[in-house]
Order: sequence, then structure tokens, then C-alpha cells
Amino acid sequence: MGQSLLITGGARSGKSALAESYALETTGKAIYIATAQAHDAEMEARIAEHQKRRGPEWTTVQAPFDLADALVQSDGGDPRMVDCLTLWLTNLMLSDADWRAQTETLVHTIATQTAPVILVTNEVGGGIVPENKLARDFRDAAGWVNQTIARTCGSVVLCVAGYPMKVKSNDHPV
Amino acid sequence: MGQSLLITGGARSGKSALAESYALETTGKAIYIATAQAHDAEMEARIAEHQKRRGPEWTTVQAPFDLADALVQSDGGDPRMVDCLTLWLTNLMLSDADWRAQTETLVHTIATQTAPVILVTNEVGGGIVPENKLARDFRDAAGWVNQTIARTCGSVVLCVAGYPMKVKSNDHPV
Amino acid sequence: MGQSLLITGGARSGKSALAESYALETTGKAIYIATAQAHDAEMEARIAEHQKRRGPEWTTVQAPFDLADALVQSDGGDPRMVDCLTLWLTNLMLSDADWRAQTETLVHTIATQTAPVILVTNEVGGGIVPENKLARDFRDAAGWVNQTIARTCGSVVLCVAGYPMKVKSNDHPV
Repeated sequence: MGQSLLITGGARSGKSALAESYALETTGKAIYIATAQAHDAEMEARIAEHQKRRGPEWTTVQAPFDLADALVQSDGGDPRMVDCLTLWLTNLMLSDADWRAQTETLVHTIATQTAPVILVTNEVGGGIVPENKLARDFRDAAGWVNQTIARTCGSVVLCVAGYPMKVKSNDHPV
Repeated sequence: MGQSLLITGGARSGKSALAESYALETTGKAIYIATAQAHDAEMEARIAEHQKRRGPEWTTVQAPFDLADALVQSDGGDPRMVDCLTLWLTNLMLSDADWRAQTETLVHTIATQTAPVILVTNEVGGGIVPENKLARDFRDAAGWVNQTIARTCGSVVLCVAGYPMKVKSNDHPV
Repeated sequence: MGQSLLITGGARSGKSALAESYALETTGKAIYIATAQAHDAEMEARIAEHQKRRGPEWTTVQAPFDLADALVQSDGGDPRMVDCLTLWLTNLMLSDADWRAQTETLVHTIATQTAPVILVTNEVGGGIVPENKLARDFRDAAGWVNQTIARTCGSVVLCVAGYPMKVKSNDHPV
């Protein structure tokens, strides 16, 4: 079974940069599985900034919905980095997809990969209870997805100010 | 003196499930001290979901206000799990009770328990400063309660994606 | 080169009290570099509460903008505590200053200090994405400042419920 690592943390805590450096450690090349969809200019700018940081050693795959499929298709070679689970969940919820079932499918897919998988996700439950019901539902769903994926991953780190803190560690030398 | 453990973390980070598993470790039975009050359907659903997870090895005690008293009454036998301090604080603040004085009372009660106590609380200060003054006051109060209870507890863990990270550890083998 | 420590954490997580105790460890005296500006009564009350805790072993310097300069001027003697970077960033952003350039200047200043520097900052990215564009921009800026300063500091800790968790540690015995 390939190594799997979940990197969680707050917004702008350095999760993606950390995931990128881990992804390139093994073969010097990596596959970037992007879940982001640019719905507006702000999101476009954020995606462009992330892409600017990655060089020619990266191959990019778009997977706003079919994340498990993208992992299966890209397995067997270089490490994959999934950026990020929170946007993937957002996409699924906005299109009324069965995000719980798809998360379970993702769990089984991660467990059977042979090449490494590094998944980025967000901590969204550390603030005051949101006044907005939709925000509370999303917060609950994101927390459930994080716990469910963390359970199947060999290692989990919390990223703080750009540095990893060990949450769970079986197979990754953090 | 009995062991005391404070479990803190964001919403849906797996704090309650973690507390439940620790509570059952010693005798295989435990007492659940619930501070939640169902004010609306959303809260009722959340309480019901938590109850569904607990089996017949649990005895439930309701203590939305008199938490120290519930600990004293239930002492001497199985471990107790308090779920959670943040809702208890909410109840006290909404009824204009002296939550600082009651927290000090709780500190003294925890320090004199003979059976283990596991307390669940929430991290609510990790987001942007709330625009709402009441939310800022609650955030300040919750942070103060967490620090005050953490000082008296033998161990403190931060729960992230279902896993405990050691914050302070004297007597609990996390 | 002097020791440098960044203390991050949520609101009311005990960061300032922790920084104060570290600052007094070396010589029993310390310099408090305050970035806060009292714009309203709530802020005044918060500043007054922080001051009340500090005794005559403290010298206070106000530096809402010229933080690098305050460090240079106060170098060579007792440890300095900067409280906090998040308010400093707020001041810079509100006055349309070049906060990125000033952060880079601060990085170089920290790297050349001879007396210890302890910097307090805030985790603000752990909640739901704010609906307000200004809040999102601030959150992004604060995360970038935290990462940038963390890189130059010898040690970084995350404060939870009053206790430090090691994030990065080169030279500080946390």
C-alpha cells in the first residue's frame, strides 16, 4: 500500500507549500490533482498564485468532482497531491451530490493506492458558531470528511505558520 | 486524586467520540454528564446523534447548570464525561449567572474528585474577530474558561480530525 | 544572534501570559513593545487588563507602526516581547502602508538582534471563510505574516488553553 498523508490547517497556514515539498521528495516529480473551480475573479487569482509556485516537475489534473477516479487513473507512478478536500466537498454540496457516499468511496480508493497520496484539507471549526445555517452544515460536513479521511491515512499533520505538527504518524517521516 | 483530562478542539473534530473511548477504558462503564439543552430542532438532532453512539454501558445525567454538583453526586465509581463546557458556559451566560464564580467552583470540585473526569470543550478563538459584540464576549469567556479548567486538569489534549495531540500531560497516557 | 520565539494561537488562548513568563526568564526584567492602539472603549479595556498583569519589572514601548525600529532601539539588554503582530498588521493595513515590505524589514531586523525577542501573533484562519471580502483579505495577510515571521524565528509554539505546543524548535527550551 502506498503512503498516504493528510495535511490539515487553517487558511493560509502553508498547507499547500508543505504538501508540494513532500510530494516532490520521492521522485522529484509529482501530479497535482486540483479540485478548485474558478467561480469568480478572487478564486481565479488564488488558483493562479498556487500554479505560479509549481514548476515543470508538476503535471496537473482537474478533478472538481471525480477525485477517486483521478487517483485511480494516476496511480502507479509519481506521488499525487490533492488540493484540496474542502473545495471538493464544496463542489459536491453545491451540486447536491451524495458527499458522504463519495467520501466513503474515496476512503476505499486511498486504501488501495500504490503510489503516495498527499491530501490537503482545511480546519474550519475553530471559530465562533456561524450564524448562517448553511455555514454550520458545511462546517459539520467538513469536520466529518476530515475525520473520515484521517482514519484511512497513514499520517496526519496539522500545519501551523508553515510548519507541520504531528497528529497521527504511521508511515510518513514528518 | 482522580485523573482529570480536558479535551479541546474545533467543531466536529471528534472530541466527544475520543472522550467516550477514554471514559470506557477503566471500568467498561461510564457516566455521561450532559450540559446541552435542546432549544431548537437542530440542537435536538445533534443531541440525538450523540446519544445514538452511546450504548447501555452509559448512564446519563443532565446538568445544564449544576455541573459541580453533578460531579460531586456521581463521584466514587465509574469515570465521568462532561459534554461540554462550552454549552455549560452558554447556559450560564444566557441566564445571567456568575460564570466566573461557577468556573472557580468547578475548578475546586475537579481537584477533589476521586473517580476520573473527562471534560470536553471547544476552541472558538481561531477565526477572524467576530463583528458581533456578544460573540466577542462569548469568545473571550470561553477562552478564559478553557485556560482556567486546563490549569486544574492533569492532562489536556487538542483533538484534530479525530486524533489527540498532547497539550499538557501529567497523569493520562495519551 | 539572540533567541527569537513566535507564539501563535487563538483569541484568549493565553499567548500573552505565556510570552510574559518567557520574557522574564532570563534577566527578571523585560521590555514590552505594544502595537495596540485604543480606538474604542472595548480596546482600551483590553489594553488596561493586559497592563494590570505586568508589574514594575516591565518597561513599555509603544510601536503601533515602527516595530523594526523599536526592536533596534531596544536591543542589547533585556528580552523584548512584541504584543502583537496581528494588531501591527491591522494598523499597517488600515493606513494603507506596504505591510509586505515592512514584514520583510522586520524579518531582517529579527535576524540581527542580540537580545531575545518574543513575538505574539494570532491564528485567524481556523473558521469558516468570512463572507466579508476585507476579512478574507486580512485573514490571508495575517497567515502570510505568520509564515514569514515563523521562518525567521528560531522557535515557534502554538498556545492552546494556556499551554505551549511545539511547532518549530531550534533554540528555545519549550
